[in-house]
Amino acid sequence: VTFLPIIATRRDGGVHTEEELRFLANGAADGSIPDYQLAAWLMAAYLNPLTAQETAWLTLAMADSGERLDLSGLPKPWVDKHSTGGVGDKTSIVVLPLLAACGLTVIKMSGRGLGITGGTVDKLSAVPGFRVDLTPEEMKTQARRIGLALTGQTPALAPADKTLYALRDVTATVGSIPLIVSSILSKKLAGGADVIVLDVKCGSGAFMKSLDEAQRLTTALLETAKLCGLQVRVAITDMSEPLGAAVGNALEVAEALSVLDSRRRGDLPGGTLRFQRLCTELAAITLEAAGVSPDRDSALRAVSEALSSGAAMQKASEWFVAQGASDPRSDSFVLPAAQLVREVRSPSAGYVGKIHCDAVGQAVLELGGGRLLKTDEIDPAVGLVLQVEVGSPVRVGEAIFTIHASSAEAADRAEAAVANAFEFSADRAPAVGPVLEVR
Amino acid sequence: VTFLPIIATRRDGGVHTEEELRFLANGAADGSIPDYQLAAWLMAAYLNPLTAQETAWLTLAMADSGERLDLSGLPKPWVDKHSTGGVGDKTSIVVLPLLAACGLTVIKMSGRGLGITGGTVDKLSAVPGFRVDLTPEEMKTQARRIGLALTGQTPALAPADKTLYALRDVTATVGSIPLIVSSILSKKLAGGADVIVLDVKCGSGAFMKSLDEAQRLTTALLETAKLCGLQVRVAITDMSEPLGAAVGNALEVAEALSVLDSRRRGDLPGGTLRFQRLCTELAAITLEAAGVSPDRDSALRAVSEALSSGAAMQKASEWFVAQGASDPRSDSFVLPAAQLVREVRSPSAGYVGKIHCDAVGQAVLELGGGRLLKTDEIDPAVGLVLQVEVGSPVRVGEAIFTIHASSAEAADRAEAAVANAFEFSADRAPAVGPVLEVR
Repeated sequence: VTFLPIIATRRDGGVHTEEELRFLANGAADGSIPDYQLAAWLMAAYLNPLTAQETAWLTLAMADSGERLDLSGLPKPWVDKHSTGGVGDKTSIVVLPLLAACGLTVIKMSGRGLGITGGTVDKLSAVPGFRVDLTPEEMKTQARRIGLALTGQTPALAPADKTLYALRDVTATVGSIPLIVSSILSKKLAGGADVIVLDVKCGSGAFMKSLDEAQRLTTALLETAKLCGLQVRVAITDMSEPLGAAVGNALEVAEALSVLDSRRRGDLPGGTLRFQRLCTELAAITLEAAGVSPDRDSALRAVSEALSSGAAMQKASEWFVAQGASDPRSDSFVLPAAQLVREVRSPSAGYVGKIHCDAVGQAVLELGGGRLLKTDEIDPAVGLVLQVEVGSPVRVGEAIFTIHASSAEAADRAEAAVANAFEFSADRAPAVGPVLEVR
Repeated sequence: VTFLPIIATRRDGGVHTEEELRFLANGAADGSIPDYQLAAWLMAAYLNPLTAQETAWLTLAMADSGERLDLSGLPKPWVDKHSTGGVGDKTSIVVLPLLAACGLTVIKMSGRGLGITGGTVDKLSAVPGFRVDLTPEEMKTQARRIGLALTGQTPALAPADKTLYALRDVTATVGSIPLIVSSILSKKLAGGADVIVLDVKCGSGAFMKSLDEAQRLTTALLETAKLCGLQVRVAITDMSEPLGAAVGNALEVAEALSVLDSRRRGDLPGGTLRFQRLCTELAAITLEAAGVSPDRDSALRAVSEALSSGAAMQKASEWFVAQGASDPRSDSFVLPAAQLVREVRSPSAGYVGKIHCDAVGQAVLELGGGRLLKTDEIDPAVGLVLQVEVGSPVRVGEAIFTIHASSAEAADRAEAAVANAFEFSADRAPAVGPVLEVR
């Protein structure tokens, strides 16, 4: 078999065999198919999308292109969680220990951020000492001990996806739903979990801008998951404004810990409260999907109990320590802090009508808190903290956000970038989400 | 400017600016755009074809991506000739010296063959000593002296095309008409000629299988040439059977020389005679297009005179010697000969109804006379010589072709490959071509 006729089949809108897609996945994993041939196939697949069956075959082939974690011996259910990503999305840092505290075994492979979308691996990397490079063996050992392990993408698991994902990013082929689906699900399959909850973000700050797009992705995810024998639950959640108050790596870790730490819960500002609601709902959806709770209400009660009892924070502490960081409850736990913190005040009065995610994300990029190129270095300390959310009443001159910057010049650039992020209106906009749909 | 949004424009069926296509051509030429991004763009351009204006901009940009030959000082008109290639197509070896003998200045950059399609450079490389690596300066000096120079593709001229052509070949994007047009015309522009005759081959042995396809390519070539300010004449010519009698590099050179050498003309077998007719018609079309002859009839008389007077053969001799070979009329001129020559006899009687080019081309590949991969070595001595053409009456047991092979095993493989190449019929098929249409 050579790859050229496989490219031609895709180009002409034909249908691949399972063998062709295995040839592709193995060739992407071991480098025997050159990048330029994979790139041509990716563009052909973008313009002539894979069928559901082809997507499933590709997913299975990518999962089989490397090691697959065998979780046998670990307590069931084995769960995994994935978000399509958005601005301020630090959900995993709360949900994973929450689920582990509820008795589930949680194994997750996580990604790095690009553009305005941050990645959980970057956020946890802001924590001094936190290791995101666990080997498959370390993952299993840790999950056996504390019920939870997270790693950055490792070449050991789904290496074909690593190659294709990197190529999609530089060939304008990111936005193909079948390619997105196979990328997400192949990593989940390789990770070994049997219950998977997918958080499909929807809105201006997410890849899927409209509910319609998010629903199409959801349908494709469920269809392919079924063909692959995976038990998947999808929540479509709102990303029309930044998620929570903090945007920026260390600031988001701090916000996630504030949600987990019941002792501080009384202080949660508006945006953080809404973020907490999303975390508890996602955790409850997972408990229900895993059959641990008989229905949503009892699942929500179990989650609330794990938070208020301190069990979730206890699990987070075990997790941080297990992966090399200090206990977040101890004095030795110190997150990097920015040189300069500037408060920015509202020029207008009224209710906050919109907060544009792209402007907020762009401001964090200006501060050095994200990356435009995969090789860019990230400053973990910088970012924004919003003091308002959509619906907040605001007076002229009231502080609406703070900029955490490494210099006055960077703060100026961020302030300019975020200038038009806020829209005000005379009427209070109705609340949206955070969960729009569960399937 | 970065290349990613340019890929996205093509992907979404948008229209490129001239600047975008210059960025593409320069980036392909200097290697600053990686192969995988060019490959993605090529597939997007295959599926969302370039407009005529975009094709012209790309053509000009590719021509400008390297050196452009400045022929000023050389006698006008400056002509160039190109064929889209087919099985047994050794036309240039006859037509170029014929045109030079008629007083034209002929400059040509030629390609290597791939698959069943041979390349003039491979054919001339079968001649001991023949150099196909002239520098632009050597090209001009030689053309000034003898009116004719030919080189293989040099990185100095249209380097962007060199990169894109090589990539198209391995990404299943060869068949896009705008990409074919820009590849052909950019090399012609860089070559500096002001009159260009294009031989668009049509039929089972050519890239364009049907007259309709050949006409569509012709229309695109003429449209783009006009936008680029090039004077182009296109002849659509028949390639439904191998062209001439010989298929294989040294064998084709010998056949071309037999056409040029008037002393042997009485001996020309049927297929060779038809090939000679094509050469004289193409040469006449060129003379007419260049304004050297007032009409086709006087052009044909001039061409016949150049052949019968020996002027064409004299020019071929000067050409071969100028590029490092012996004089083909001398005893020191020896072409490589195969170890083994096997005559194959007809199993049937009747008229030859069809000779399938792909089977004949495949047989030559089996003999080692062509290449499947660009890195394959070619055996210049091997090939087939057909003793019949379409329309020839054949008796059972009459020799219909000879195999020139390096071993009995190779000859066996070739004989098997060519077994179904010949179709016989009770009625004589009407003659086709060789020229189907001139525009």
